[in-house]
Amino acid sequence: MRHTELSEQNCPIARSSAIVGERWVWPILRSAFNGARRFDDYQRGTGVARNILTDRLAGLVENGILVKALPEGAVQGHREYRLTDKGRALFPVYLALMQWGNEWTGLPTPPVEVQHTPCGHRTRPTVVCSECGDPLVARETRPLFGG
Amino acid sequence: MRHTELSEQNCPIARSSAIVGERWVWPILRSAFNGARRFDDYQRGTGVARNILTDRLAGLVENGILVKALPEGAVQGHREYRLTDKGRALFPVYLALMQWGNEWTGLPTPPVEVQHTPCGHRTRPTVVCSECGDPLVARETRPLFGG
Repeated sequence: MRHTELSEQNCPIARSSAIVGERWVWPILRSAFNGARRFDDYQRGTGVARNILTDRLAGLVENGILVKALPEGAVQGHREYRLTDKGRALFPVYLALMQWGNEWTGLPTPPVEVQHTPCGHRTRPTVVCSECGDPLVARETRPLFGG
Repeated sequence: MRHTELSEQNCPIARSSAIVGERWVWPILRSAFNGARRFDDYQRGTGVARNILTDRLAGLVENGILVKALPEGAVQGHREYRLTDKGRALFPVYLALMQWGNEWTGLPTPPVEVQHTPCGHRTRPTVVCSECGDPLVARETRPLFGG
């Protein structure tokens, strides 16, 4: 199977991994969530070679994660790459990945954490069951196939 | 910057994306979470070419996500690839990614959903604040740098 075929599979993990299971995509999304708009913002935010960055940004536009457009209100100038609703919806996945990285990748202290502004607390993003609110762990779930 | 250097950065997203931001890794983890142990299980579960699968499994062992060992109680035979604690800790990230895939990748109906066995309900994995329990969204968080 080729990697591009993942996006055709009838599987949410295959389809999402065809987009975010690609080198440099998470650092690019990190830049976007931290406010990057222009190509040079992304370049500074990631340190990726410009030709690779060009390719990845185009892929994220093609997949509907970013939109390439003039700045709001502008009629000319450099186009920006802004997150779409689909892209912003990756934010919880990003937080869950950040939490895992803070806990499991040998960082002496978490270099970045997240404040939840409505409650004001330093938060530990947690993946829970929508129905009972308890954290979800592998041994306590069962896949249900066929929707 | 080279991709391998991501794992050295003082950033949880860089370090985690050096592991899971790689082609085929999520479908391999899907197989692992669905019970794959032997090389052939992973091959059937992913459809990835065997040489690529060999490379990715070795990378996941090197990064401490899988451990390669004889089946429990066996003294000889084929070695299996089993999830470590570090690998199982990716399960919440996997669920968050699955949820995003179900909602945003054009699947007509979710082909796989998750039952939370303790409460018995079909669950919608949700990333919430550990302190107040509310779902985390991009506009309501602020990064805190420096631990």
